[in-house]
Amino acid sequence: MTGNTLPDAGGEQPPASPHATAPARGALSRRGLLGGGAAAAAAPGVFAAGWAVNESRDAGAPAAPREPYAFRGEHQAGITTPAQDRLHFAAFDVTTDSREELVALLVAWTEAAERLTRGEPAGEIGPVQGAANLPPDDTGEAIGLGASGLTLTFGFGPTLFTDADGKDRFGLASAQPAALRPLPHFPFDVLEERAVGGDLCIQACADDPQVAVHAIRNLARIGMGTVAVRWSQLGFGRTSTTSTSQSTPRNLFGFKDGTANVKAEETEALADHVWVQADDDPKGAWLAGGSYLAARRINMLIETWDRQPLADQEAFTGRSKDTGAPLSGGQEFTEPDFDLPGSNGPAIAVDAHVRVVHPDFHDGARMLRRGYNFVDGSNDLGGLNAGLFFLAYVRNPDTHFIPVQTAMAKSDALMEYLKVTGSALFAIPAGAKPGEHVGQALFEATA
Amino acid sequence: MTGNTLPDAGGEQPPASPHATAPARGALSRRGLLGGGAAAAAAPGVFAAGWAVNESRDAGAPAAPREPYAFRGEHQAGITTPAQDRLHFAAFDVTTDSREELVALLVAWTEAAERLTRGEPAGEIGPVQGAANLPPDDTGEAIGLGASGLTLTFGFGPTLFTDADGKDRFGLASAQPAALRPLPHFPFDVLEERAVGGDLCIQACADDPQVAVHAIRNLARIGMGTVAVRWSQLGFGRTSTTSTSQSTPRNLFGFKDGTANVKAEETEALADHVWVQADDDPKGAWLAGGSYLAARRINMLIETWDRQPLADQEAFTGRSKDTGAPLSGGQEFTEPDFDLPGSNGPAIAVDAHVRVVHPDFHDGARMLRRGYNFVDGSNDLGGLNAGLFFLAYVRNPDTHFIPVQTAMAKSDALMEYLKVTGSALFAIPAGAKPGEHVGQALFEATA
Repeated sequence: MTGNTLPDAGGEQPPASPHATAPARGALSRRGLLGGGAAAAAAPGVFAAGWAVNESRDAGAPAAPREPYAFRGEHQAGITTPAQDRLHFAAFDVTTDSREELVALLVAWTEAAERLTRGEPAGEIGPVQGAANLPPDDTGEAIGLGASGLTLTFGFGPTLFTDADGKDRFGLASAQPAALRPLPHFPFDVLEERAVGGDLCIQACADDPQVAVHAIRNLARIGMGTVAVRWSQLGFGRTSTTSTSQSTPRNLFGFKDGTANVKAEETEALADHVWVQADDDPKGAWLAGGSYLAARRINMLIETWDRQPLADQEAFTGRSKDTGAPLSGGQEFTEPDFDLPGSNGPAIAVDAHVRVVHPDFHDGARMLRRGYNFVDGSNDLGGLNAGLFFLAYVRNPDTHFIPVQTAMAKSDALMEYLKVTGSALFAIPAGAKPGEHVGQALFEATA
Repeated sequence: MTGNTLPDAGGEQPPASPHATAPARGALSRRGLLGGGAAAAAAPGVFAAGWAVNESRDAGAPAAPREPYAFRGEHQAGITTPAQDRLHFAAFDVTTDSREELVALLVAWTEAAERLTRGEPAGEIGPVQGAANLPPDDTGEAIGLGASGLTLTFGFGPTLFTDADGKDRFGLASAQPAALRPLPHFPFDVLEERAVGGDLCIQACADDPQVAVHAIRNLARIGMGTVAVRWSQLGFGRTSTTSTSQSTPRNLFGFKDGTANVKAEETEALADHVWVQADDDPKGAWLAGGSYLAARRINMLIETWDRQPLADQEAFTGRSKDTGAPLSGGQEFTEPDFDLPGSNGPAIAVDAHVRVVHPDFHDGARMLRRGYNFVDGSNDLGGLNAGLFFLAYVRNPDTHFIPVQTAMAKSDALMEYLKVTGSALFAIPAGAKPGEHVGQALFEATA
């Protein structure tokens, strides 16, 4: 039960949470700083005229929007939610020293996230109403686009708990799980300094990229003075399936990606491999029902890959480019047979990607991946600056991610065509309960 | 009559052009270099099994693909074609000195473009067939995605005709139109060196970004050894309408953009403002039926804009953020009244964007714009690296683009929030006739 495939019971009404109508506090309240709270007190609902979903959609436009995904639930939405087509991911640095301001931000983000995932503006006033001498509290570019399947998933990086000098920044260090450490520097990591780590993260997934971008932009705006964007990444094509209702898409190597993913329907596998359990870590009981997110920006050496013969591409991957079937035979979802002999050694080479990362060689560990293809223009060599923005949710990175990544770096034939340029790990708290803000259990555990 | 809204008369069959089955020549033929032409001689159609459109689309995925747009026609597709949702634009440097190799590339690109816009692989073999010891002639990531409304629009930059020293690079200088010069450096241009100019360009528009990316990638691959990508840009949200059948979308300032655009249905306006006429320029008769494309990457100072009061945003723009109506009143498509008095000067300020660029102040000049929003992650200041990738098709940049851009740079209130980081001008030849390659009239005029 993920609880995120049905609309919130509150329907179109703002939820009856204690903070639903509370103005943002302190550094969060630009409106307050700029001209008093009168505009902020306008009645909810005034945005409606400027925010209706455009019913006369253009030919070729995406299908009519589905029911919004509920923001609240047992787990955060955006993990087992059927992977939407578009991504905007952002990592933030917290720029304040104040725990109170950090909590106020999470309260404000929670409120805004509920609104945005319902397809409403980020704030109560909206983009086109309110006092003319104040900035709108929504930036407006998503007017008419509806919820578009938006999910917003929040995470806490290790540096939120302790900084590089081991300092307890916000009184959270006593609740820092042992596994929540900065990721090690793996071989083939060629990291861009900015694209490493982050105190907080938000994963915005939607069917329409403008909706995902709008959400990140408005959440960053709400956080101005408390957080600053450290790095962000757009993804345009999902490369994993998180539901058996989805067909497997292709990465920019041209191969199906995500065939062996943990899927929403596999309740037991989710409990074993994705959701943190209450007794996993004595310091991390607050994370029960949550997960860990490993984010890795993996640039592909596209032009080099494109010159490899088909047989080599398939040998490196261990699967057919056409059907996705393992080279040991069968169909896409046939389990690979690593012992089956081929014409020259095993049918699936020992350095084939599918073998190197297979659960059989990692104590059965599986991940729930929801990666996205990206192309960020061109590099200085006239090639595409492109690859896979890898996002994987795991119960414990020490058993479910780091060993697999290490094995890949050591012996995966694909690594010759990969260069990792971004890297971060976040703890993803469970879903917020009614009346709670995102991650409230962490702050209660350290109150 | 644009000729690009109906499928090619050739339907699913390869066109009966003289080059349809001719192998690519010289540096273009990796397959030839790598292992002989046997694989290339495989019968057309072998790709079909791996390339069928996936009929069981996921919930929330875009609607079923429409009929493909024909590649050939009186004009190139991708100009008056109803603006698709996604863009990948690439500018190329020609790296050969050989006119023959340049022509061979245009022949190969034409053939591949016909295939890609039909939803077929870039080459006859396709991504998953052919000899195992050769690279596939398609990279595969668009398998199952169909045509997705793909259009490919090719252009010739001024540097294809004469280089910076005035050298006639390929014997084309005698046919260089007077208006085809590198764009001047405008105030507020803060150009990235790589993102300026280009000998050739391809605009790929599609409903699915992976289809647009796939097209550029495979065309770049076909051109390896003859051209190199100079710069490229993805756009995720169209900001213009090119047909009265489309509703006006919003740019990242949150305003409707493209209200006053020349639209496909305005046949007379297209002839007056978009299509080059045979007697426009004695050196440019070959360009009749074509156009000029001004490409400008306009970064928006998003975070600064977002702090401006609604009334200021509207005053800078000259339109209502809600409806798009001019501040002189009416509805979105009401003509602005620049003489109407307001409470403090005219209702539409003299430096309002809508006034500064209005045809009334530019001898009636109008453009056909088909710009796209972009977000390329974050900048070093923690803001979004985002803005508008401006694409405008005009009959003559000297009358229809440069004066307007100059007026904007001098007196447009919006300029305080803009920074132009990329800039290029291209001549866009008319559509290729049956049996012709893209731009053949230019090469015949200079034979």
